[in-house]
Amino acid sequence: MDPEKYQACIEACHACVTACENCAASCLEEDDVEMMVGCIELDRSCADICALAAREMARDSDFAVRVCAICAEVCEACGTECGRHKMDHCQHCAAACRRCAKLCLEMSQAHSSQPL
Amino acid sequence: MDPEKYQACIEACHACVTACENCAASCLEEDDVEMMVGCIELDRSCADICALAAREMARDSDFAVRVCAICAEVCEACGTECGRHKMDHCQHCAAACRRCAKLCLEMSQAHSSQPL
Amino acid sequence: MDPEKYQACIEACHACVTACENCAASCLEEDDVEMMVGCIELDRSCADICALAAREMARDSDFAVRVCAICAEVCEACGTECGRHKMDHCQHCAAACRRCAKLCLEMSQAHSSQPL
Amino acid sequence: MDPEKYQACIEACHACVTACENCAASCLEEDDVEMMVGCIELDRSCADICALAAREMARDSDFAVRVCAICAEVCEACGTECGRHKMDHCQHCAAACRRCAKLCLEMSQAHSSQPL
Repeated sequence: MDPEKYQACIEACHACVTACENCAASCLEEDDVEMMVGCIELDRSCADICALAAREMARDSDFAVRVCAICAEVCEACGTECGRHKMDHCQHCAAACRRCAKLCLEMSQAHSSQPL
Repeated sequence: MDPEKYQACIEACHACVTACENCAASCLEEDDVEMMVGCIELDRSCADICALAAREMARDSDFAVRVCAICAEVCEACGTECGRHKMDHCQHCAAACRRCAKLCLEMSQAHSSQPL
Repeated sequence: MDPEKYQACIEACHACVTACENCAASCLEEDDVEMMVGCIELDRSCADICALAAREMARDSDFAVRVCAICAEVCEACGTECGRHKMDHCQHCAAACRRCAKLCLEMSQAHSSQPL
Repeated sequence: MDPEKYQACIEACHACVTACENCAASCLEEDDVEMMVGCIELDRSCADICALAAREMARDSDFAVRVCAICAEVCEACGTECGRHKMDHCQHCAAACRRCAKLCLEMSQAHSSQPL
């Protein structure tokens, strides 16, 4: 097994987990929490699916491609929502989500012909 | 939010997590570990994706349907592999996987028309 | 490995994961989200640590006792906070947390003499 | 919330998750799997607790200190076991575990006076 096989995508997933957890926690401290509800909800799902994608890639699972495909969609949705808010934690999270969405999409397309 | 919405499927996922973790740990204690390698590998992915599916359903995430669709596939693969081995932990795990695969497939098909 | 060894505690942990995820998602839909912030924060940590405790027990890990000891504390804190709110999802979560705290504490005390 | 507060320790935890998953998967492909059983078992617990520690730090949870304290112990045990095997994946994992153990211990000691 080549440990470097998915290294960039794994690191993007882990950076996205951290950004999403930090964003959700920071959203909960905002004065207008109500406005951040959609952001918090997406942060939670995004952190969970990114964490799973990173591990499935690290173990070179047969299901890594499928998990990365859905991870790209969740990251896309989370990045769009976070991008609507001007706070640093949201903008930082939006950037991490977009990068992760891009790398997960590329990963899933590059390996989509491999047998499930 | 209706806490009972996905209750049966959530419980099937959690039972599958427990069965897979127990099966993997028991496989590692078998005399012929080599024969159990495929089982251990699938147990790990299956436990992780079932754990995620349960949480996405419990929080009624927009992505729960998608996660359950892939969860059904991983459970199907894991159940097939575990079903090949006669040990109690493998047979128990195979049954848990098949039940979880069935409920996750039904869940994903019943709600597939909802917007992602 | 005895698959029934920690069965009641594992099931209490999984029930607590589901209750915490449902509670956090429901808190985010309340009119006064601000009032629920502490509850949401604790729900997230409690769900994560309960999920880990269940898996460490299912695989009969040497670290299961230690994880259950901290799990009991997180559940105690989450149950206390949820118990302050009258909504059904909070009251249901408080009950799940208290039961899980009790079983995790008993588990960690019963096995505390085993070598770490 | 300061997003950089625990950055080095979070990154060490994520690097350890990846190394442990890669090591476990690679151990399962070794000719003498039997010899790697202890390594695989510790890799699984270590990956799970490191993943939790990273998230608890990223969300600045009140329980991050406690989770990092136990994470340091699991990493220490996993690093010692991996260090006994000469394969690249084990040596790489041992290094990641030792670094993570060091940073998690420092983190837990530096913040141990904060109220749980």
